[in-house]
Amino acid sequence: MRNIRLLIQYDGTAYHGWQTQPNGVTIQGQLEGRLENILGEKTPVTGAGRTDAGVHALAQCACFNTNSRLSTDTLREALNAGLPADIRILTADEADESFHARFSATGKTYIYIISTSRITSPFLLRYVWRLPYRLDIEAMRNAAASLLGHHDFSAFRGSGCGAKTTLRTLRTASVDRKDDMEFMAFRIEGDFIVLRFEGDAFLRHMVRNMVGSLVEVGRGKMKPADIADILAKGDRNLAGPTAPAQGLFLEQINYA
Amino acid sequence: MRNIRLLIQYDGTAYHGWQTQPNGVTIQGQLEGRLENILGEKTPVTGAGRTDAGVHALAQCACFNTNSRLSTDTLREALNAGLPADIRILTADEADESFHARFSATGKTYIYIISTSRITSPFLLRYVWRLPYRLDIEAMRNAAASLLGHHDFSAFRGSGCGAKTTLRTLRTASVDRKDDMEFMAFRIEGDFIVLRFEGDAFLRHMVRNMVGSLVEVGRGKMKPADIADILAKGDRNLAGPTAPAQGLFLEQINYA
Repeated sequence: MRNIRLLIQYDGTAYHGWQTQPNGVTIQGQLEGRLENILGEKTPVTGAGRTDAGVHALAQCACFNTNSRLSTDTLREALNAGLPADIRILTADEADESFHARFSATGKTYIYIISTSRITSPFLLRYVWRLPYRLDIEAMRNAAASLLGHHDFSAFRGSGCGAKTTLRTLRTASVDRKDDMEFMAFRIEGDFIVLRFEGDAFLRHMVRNMVGSLVEVGRGKMKPADIADILAKGDRNLAGPTAPAQGLFLEQINYA
Repeated sequence: MRNIRLLIQYDGTAYHGWQTQPNGVTIQGQLEGRLENILGEKTPVTGAGRTDAGVHALAQCACFNTNSRLSTDTLREALNAGLPADIRILTADEADESFHARFSATGKTYIYIISTSRITSPFLLRYVWRLPYRLDIEAMRNAAASLLGHHDFSAFRGSGCGAKTTLRTLRTASVDRKDDMEFMAFRIEGDFIVLRFEGDAFLRHMVRNMVGSLVEVGRGKMKPADIADILAKGDRNLAGPTAPAQGLFLEQINYA
């Protein structure tokens, strides 16, 4: 059987997340629906990871097996022709039989964008957490640094997470301020905070829960040292709220 | 009476254009509705120019007269609090009594963005004309140059245009290719054409009709020299189709 690898970009606004659900339109559901039309048989698609309802992806990775002789270009074009325009197959290529979108992944990068401007541009509205407060970025950076490394991330695990182990390695946790954002041919004035996380894997809601806790630090409701303490105690109830989905982007899946 | 000047940014996707209409939600209608709530009386708002249904604005200018003693900051915040998030008042300030958003304007800048990529990013979807063809940019540039200067632009005037004169001065008509677009923290691969027009004023649909005609040149269906000919003949039927609204941005209103 051929093993076809897809790179997929989507605006998550209209979807109930990646994973097929009995109720609610999902990215995986849309893909599998199109593939069944194209290939004439049910064809399960395996994603590198689930994204929650409303979360965006620059380059989600997924694969599927097929005996079809259609070229990867034809498959990509047929998928794009049938998918809604807010889901695009960027590339389709032939992967090794051993390649698995999820198990072969060595890491993932997520970006989270906060607009702390008093006024958030209508053009960026769907892609940020609007939080018109002054945030102490140095405190947030210090707190983020304490999350780096190999830890039990139970304190930042969302309910319903089915992971067998809660040990994860976080290799990047950066917090940067931006005065403005580029938007196509335009420079949009504002105040933004861009958080970037790279790690081997992430628990359910882990990025959003870390962001929610870092924001508590930025607002002075928690101290930077509290984050290390919460991590060590492993108690979800001590951590901050879950940041909204719409500011989150799955940027990249890394493979060896 | 005070004369308050507003700079307004909006995503035009959800609106029937700038101008108040009996049916259909418009930017002007939303503004006047909010102002009536805030000021307790009907307060007409004068815009620098109408934008069509679906057209976006980076910085539309508008003004209104009031005897209210509310500060401009308070007015801006009260407006933003009540307006939908896809319309934002960027600034509100006190203008001279003689200032008129439309008649004081000395020029306007419009940007039009075409995505000629085979695949258009979901994140840019609402802001481009998707036209997955190779366009001859040199031919488009030559054709655009022939539109520069003081002319009768009847050939590019949309039906229903109520302007008394069709003479306009076009001072900029540029056509540029871009390999990728910045979108917040991301670089989006693709092929884009960015058209920029600056002139003293524009007739109804004039930018979209010029873009539609330049695209005909880019696709080889018209020759660059045809554009000068169409302009000279002043016949709308000879020009190309009207480019879709969603690729068009009112970038700026210029005042002396």
